[in-house]
Amino acid sequence: MKNYKFLIEYDGTRYYGWQRQPDQETIQGKLEKVLALLCGDDTVEVIGAGRTDAGVHARGMVANAAFSTELSAEEIRDYFNRYLPDDIAVKEVKEASERFHARYNAVGKTYRYTCYEGPVKPVFDRRYYYRLDKAPDMAGMEAAAKLLMGEHDFRNFCATPRMKKSTIRNVDSIVIRRKNGYLTFTFHGEGFLQNMVRILVGTLLEVGYGRMTLEQVEEALNPDIRKKAGPTAPAMGLCLWEVDY
Amino acid sequence: MKNYKFLIEYDGTRYYGWQRQPDQETIQGKLEKVLALLCGDDTVEVIGAGRTDAGVHARGMVANAAFSTELSAEEIRDYFNRYLPDDIAVKEVKEASERFHARYNAVGKTYRYTCYEGPVKPVFDRRYYYRLDKAPDMAGMEAAAKLLMGEHDFRNFCATPRMKKSTIRNVDSIVIRRKNGYLTFTFHGEGFLQNMVRILVGTLLEVGYGRMTLEQVEEALNPDIRKKAGPTAPAMGLCLWEVDY
Repeated sequence: MKNYKFLIEYDGTRYYGWQRQPDQETIQGKLEKVLALLCGDDTVEVIGAGRTDAGVHARGMVANAAFSTELSAEEIRDYFNRYLPDDIAVKEVKEASERFHARYNAVGKTYRYTCYEGPVKPVFDRRYYYRLDKAPDMAGMEAAAKLLMGEHDFRNFCATPRMKKSTIRNVDSIVIRRKNGYLTFTFHGEGFLQNMVRILVGTLLEVGYGRMTLEQVEEALNPDIRKKAGPTAPAMGLCLWEVDY
Repeated sequence: MKNYKFLIEYDGTRYYGWQRQPDQETIQGKLEKVLALLCGDDTVEVIGAGRTDAGVHARGMVANAAFSTELSAEEIRDYFNRYLPDDIAVKEVKEASERFHARYNAVGKTYRYTCYEGPVKPVFDRRYYYRLDKAPDMAGMEAAAKLLMGEHDFRNFCATPRMKKSTIRNVDSIVIRRKNGYLTFTFHGEGFLQNMVRILVGTLLEVGYGRMTLEQVEEALNPDIRKKAGPTAPAMGLCLWEVDY
């Protein structure tokens, strides 16, 4: 029995997210189905670095799975790619230490959210950006990003805050770039709550459109006030870019 | 009545090519349907710079159409993009001289053919490249490209050579680039015969794989010999890049 580390890319458009579900197509479900085929055992779990929501993409999802096979790491990669649908790819398989755990050992994650604000929607990457009707104000968004960076209780930036678990997170960088009609938001932090990146983007856009003030952003960061953050930006613009170990 | 020049981008995957067909979805058909809506006249023709085959994409298709409207050029563009499906976009609309004809006035075309030769198929652009199982030899392809460039009778590089029409064409450049697992072939010439770019790519790949010699390429370029050129490379890798006027 060996433990393997996987680097995975997927177009999440037609999936119900990462996590295995009984009657839904999911990324984890697809990977485990191929793994069951490969090692003749349908109980082997593929452990992901995190759970992406329905419709969210990944360029750099990391996962691990422990199983027995006579195939080399490269042959495992090729086996997966032969049987996976063409919107999921295993980019790399490496033997890992037996203690390696893709979720517990992750020390940082990069997410990128892509918007398009130009006049004509590009065709070729149309599944990977969120279309904006007009360009939001950059200075306002930069100022809001400064407030959001750092350690905060992000309870108001979470889809389903569970009372017992900590909602304190540290967002150590938010980089906003504008280029060729695209507007991208790149977030780095140790970890993010459910929907948190999309709510952060929704909040930044609200400020960019003048519909939310910096004071309101500060209020949303105060967990004692049940003040709403911005709306949850659509899943299609979000991509799990990289996981650090 | 004014004549308008259109710059159009499309993902050809689900279309039966550019040219209008009675019972098939085509790019021209889709554009003319929107135009009929815009100007209340379903007889206005959208004239394209050329006809792309089923499954072929375009970043820079040019077309023209003459019609009456009170909308500005920019409003026409926005009207099209509101009603077109999301795999076709009108990037630009400009008023043109009444004599401008997108096909007759085209003096050059650039086509790019994209292959992927790396070990793992990229997911996000999977509809826009042709997957190669192994990397073809560059030197052989470069030598074959040198033979194919210039003015030749490309009868053997054409899907349906019609006896009465000239099959002489001038391919003034073929640029082959290898980068990050992608292999691209960029062709420029005044015009190309039906399937010609795809057959040129198929021929270059045959040479790259050592299945065709340079002598056989030269023979295929001799119209008196009914010698077969290489196979027709799949449509999905091909993109009409630019049209010159």
